[in-house]
Amino acid sequence: MQKINIKDEIASLDQYWSQKVIAEANGQLFKVAKGIGEINWHTHDDQDELFILYKGRLTVQLRTEDIELFEGELFVVPRGVEHRAKSEEEAAFIIVGINITSHKQGGKPDWSYANQRPQDLL
Amino acid sequence: MQKINIKDEIASLDQYWSQKVIAEANGQLFKVAKGIGEINWHTHDDQDELFILYKGRLTVQLRTEDIELFEGELFVVPRGVEHRAKSEEEAAFIIVGINITSHKQGGKPDWSYANQRPQDLL
Repeated sequence: MQKINIKDEIASLDQYWSQKVIAEANGQLFKVAKGIGEINWHTHDDQDELFILYKGRLTVQLRTEDIELFEGELFVVPRGVEHRAKSEEEAAFIIVGINITSHKQGGKPDWSYANQRPQDLL
Repeated sequence: MQKINIKDEIASLDQYWSQKVIAEANGQLFKVAKGIGEINWHTHDDQDELFILYKGRLTVQLRTEDIELFEGELFVVPRGVEHRAKSEEEAAFIIVGINITSHKQGGKPDWSYANQRPQDLL
């Protein structure tokens, strides 16, 4: 059985705001992703989404408040709560949930599919 | 809604090999624990157990091999696989599973209930 190095998995990411599954346990997917700029507002009705920050700084915006995550901090977006994420500099994190949420309905912005930085950060 | 600082939660632990729940998502408990010395061989038939190391070094022993975990590494003990954990110096980690497993049946050694170090590490 293999152990997994989280930083190596983050280093292997080649696209912003795309999730890579690194482990599965009890029906949960443990995924890594990196982000810069911001994604679109969205809601997951089927799952809570848990973040653990590994690099940089990530703002998880809810309609009621902003949660500023620093390295080593954890936050759960409960199912049904509208949110988006943004980061001024590159951030990297673990996301735990029951499936891959980095698609258009999951807030993934159009520019990120080509692994570009958003226009205003070029 | 509150974010959680993992290192602060680890610092708050007052007993070896006891799990403290810091978050819940999709029916999974995210727990922190610290360990030194070794626990007893045991098996969880009801759940996979996922470890992420935050401090020190932890050996997850299976009957077939030893997995040496360093900071930032992740490992899943599948349900039904006999295992124990050991650490020569204090280690701290996240454990994810569906309930608290740090009881006698979960391998917690008698000496740890009083927050003592094992005799051979005193």
